[in-house]
Amino acid sequence: MGRWEPDARGRLERAALALYEERGFEHTTVAEIAARAGLTERTFFRYFTDKREVLFAGAGALQGLLVDAVADLPPSAAPIDAMAAALDAATGMFEERRDHAVQRQAVILANPELQERELIKLARLAAALADALRQRGVRDPAASLAAETGIAVFKIAFERWISETNRRTLSQLIHESFEELKAVASGSTSRSSS
Amino acid sequence: MGRWEPDARGRLERAALALYEERGFEHTTVAEIAARAGLTERTFFRYFTDKREVLFAGAGALQGLLVDAVADLPPSAAPIDAMAAALDAATGMFEERRDHAVQRQAVILANPELQERELIKLARLAAALADALRQRGVRDPAASLAAETGIAVFKIAFERWISETNRRTLSQLIHESFEELKAVASGSTSRSSS
Repeated sequence: MGRWEPDARGRLERAALALYEERGFEHTTVAEIAARAGLTERTFFRYFTDKREVLFAGAGALQGLLVDAVADLPPSAAPIDAMAAALDAATGMFEERRDHAVQRQAVILANPELQERELIKLARLAAALADALRQRGVRDPAASLAAETGIAVFKIAFERWISETNRRTLSQLIHESFEELKAVASGSTSRSSS
Repeated sequence: MGRWEPDARGRLERAALALYEERGFEHTTVAEIAARAGLTERTFFRYFTDKREVLFAGAGALQGLLVDAVADLPPSAAPIDAMAAALDAATGMFEERRDHAVQRQAVILANPELQERELIKLARLAAALADALRQRGVRDPAASLAAETGIAVFKIAFERWISETNRRTLSQLIHESFEELKAVASGSTSRSSS
């Protein structure tokens, strides 16, 4: 009972994503995921509480990474630059697994309940970043505005990174979206902007 | 069976909010709401599909109002100004019922499931506004960025309006938050900003 299995978490994750893509998230069972990974259901539940958590297990690590990145910046950094630096610190986590990110996004877009869960994840990230800014002495509403717009920039850059074929890096797209945000917020973006 | 009751919708709404505040949303039943309003459950279900909808029935009207306001603007309006104008068009809907808004917000903040539902409502509003901007010829990512930041500004201004005691109008707070957004996005907001 309970022998060690090499890369059990990775195998379960890949098996789950493949099945969610083939049959849909709602039509996949934990038993099927375990079987596809060559593991037992018991092993599955050692790593994940349910089949949804396979898609959201990384949220805690991402939040910790973003909050730590904000805390590590020099006190002089403006809030929006703190957001840009924090998001930049997290890009490696996604860049090293672009295929995984693409597959995960497709599964989420196919299921309204998962889309809702993703929104909640992003809202929690924004709240945690606003807290991190407040701890640096940034007051509201600047802290909330910087955090919410930072997450909006990230979401939009991430969707472009997933969908585009010319393979700019996520980091490049985040920088571009922050520049675009500056143009949008200043009112210098007109109908003809791209 | 089915006699007409004056202001049935308003009576049900007020009874529901009072009960959600007194006992908590999760501990209130439709039967109790109807009884408090002096109406039948059958009448309740003529207006609302369930007890949650009492809190979210206005979302469709709000979305229509915002989208129409964007469509009515002159073609020259910059996307962020289109957002400001659209949100300004909607303030009357809230201003005329501030007590209702305060009570509703307290009920939502007390219940995680309702908070999630509120986030989803705001995300849908942002998606609808981005669509409205695209129909005016605004391209992405400017359309998505303007819509997402516009909704972030609204959310933050709304929370300030609900919580503050000096009674600035929602319209004033929205204008201030857009100004603050410009300062935040340009990086001119530092730690000491308020």
